[in-house]
Amino acid sequence: MITLYAADSPNVVKIHLALEEMGLAYRTVPIDVMAGETFAPDFLRINPNGKVPVIVDETGSTGGPVTIFESGAILIYLAEKTGMFLPTDAVERYQTLQWLMVQMSGLGPILGQFVHFRLFAPVPDDYALSRYTTLTRRVLDALETRLGDAPWLGGSDYSIADMATFPWIRPLARLFGPEIDDDYPRLTQWVERIGARPATARALDAVEAVGRLTTPPGEASPENRDKVFGRGAYARTPA
Amino acid sequence: MITLYAADSPNVVKIHLALEEMGLAYRTVPIDVMAGETFAPDFLRINPNGKVPVIVDETGSTGGPVTIFESGAILIYLAEKTGMFLPTDAVERYQTLQWLMVQMSGLGPILGQFVHFRLFAPVPDDYALSRYTTLTRRVLDALETRLGDAPWLGGSDYSIADMATFPWIRPLARLFGPEIDDDYPRLTQWVERIGARPATARALDAVEAVGRLTTPPGEASPENRDKVFGRGAYARTPA
Ligand SMILES: N[C@@H](CCC(=O)N[C@@H](CS)C(=O)NCC(=O)O)C(=O)O
Ligand SMILES: N[C@@H](CCC(=O)N[C@@H](CS)C(=O)NCC(=O)O)C(=O)O
Repeated sequence: MITLYAADSPNVVKIHLALEEMGLAYRTVPIDVMAGETFAPDFLRINPNGKVPVIVDETGSTGGPVTIFESGAILIYLAEKTGMFLPTDAVERYQTLQWLMVQMSGLGPILGQFVHFRLFAPVPDDYALSRYTTLTRRVLDALETRLGDAPWLGGSDYSIADMATFPWIRPLARLFGPEIDDDYPRLTQWVERIGARPATARALDAVEAVGRLTTPPGEASPENRDKVFGRGAYARTPA
Repeated sequence: MITLYAADSPNVVKIHLALEEMGLAYRTVPIDVMAGETFAPDFLRINPNGKVPVIVDETGSTGGPVTIFESGAILIYLAEKTGMFLPTDAVERYQTLQWLMVQMSGLGPILGQFVHFRLFAPVPDDYALSRYTTLTRRVLDALETRLGDAPWLGGSDYSIADMATFPWIRPLARLFGPEIDDDYPRLTQWVERIGARPATARALDAVEAVGRLTTPPGEASPENRDKVFGRGAYARTPA
């Protein structure tokens, strides 16, 4: 049995998608991020970096339980455990891993900064918003180019690279306005294809259920908002 | 023979470290980032995301040449090609991959934003600097905790997780002042251990040689600075 420490956030959606596609049995433990639970000593013992998702697999491949954090590492683990959604053929394997990394190191962090400055920063910051719009567009252009060469990010089949990227592309129209879809027709069509998969529907339902059990950002204490959003309670000024 | 498309930047240092440790033959092709070469059509054909490092391995495991971008994917590729620096034992394998992901998705992007607002943003931005100091400290705390549990990030042996992280920890004192080392004694000592490896010295020499062949940021045209730093030439305003 796999335990998934979860919140209703894009990096956790990835893992629900994988678990549902792979048909693995799992239970979900909601972590109430906006109530400060990622800073709690108990949680830091399973992930010293204080972030969801984390999984614990009681029957890991070596027999004993395995704890893994970072969505990208969890996806590789689940793919290697089941032999699904990550090719072993050298070319497609590393194409899958490289596009997984584009999501982990580029799209996710950059769009994350955009969302922060758009929704959670204490003061308006036009330069930051323009910067993160520019950089988001740059990585979207790369993804759109890729989908001109292959039907899926990893190549010929749906893979963990698509699962990692889908939750970050889905909200684009909400964040940037519906016109953005016109600039990225292949990405828009790719989102529709993934959205139509039965496992995707099950995953999104599971994420919604977690959302109902946790504190919305608007209801968090000012102290927890500062901590979770990196707004300064933790700050020490640079030299 | 492996070709490494390189610049003198932390994400490329990772690959020099790996190639030197593994004893693989390679040649380096400098990409002049500040002269706009990552935006050139020829370069975008090998990496549509327009970033170094990229490798081309003429004798990839399937016989034909393989092109791979994203430093994290290249490190996994090289480790799997040689059977070195990424354990196959399940527990240490995924610990190595999860700390590799912490660098790729956390330390690198977050410290990258700090460097941007500290050195390259057109206007001073105290909030952004405080935010990225806070978030850098948070991931450094996680790394310091990890090095209390194991001598290396992946566990008992030096691995691709350490190679990915070293180039981002080395400049901390320069960026935040030398006092920062006092807060992170294990990380400081770990940097010294890696710095003392003969392969590290060879890698840093190779990176310095690339630096001598490329344009320093201070000498770039305003247009290229705007493009490379995401300062707006590419910007479209959010809805
Ligand atoms: N790179 C990590 C990022 C995880 C992440 O940012 N998780 C957020 C929710 S999407 C979180 O736990 N935030 C709470 C916190 O930082 O305290 C991954 O992909 O797993
Ligand atoms: N996530 C990528 C990041 C690579 C990256 O940011 N490369 C920088 C140099 S360190 C670059 O090529 N910048 C030029 C550009 O963005 O145009 C990786 O780890 O390979």
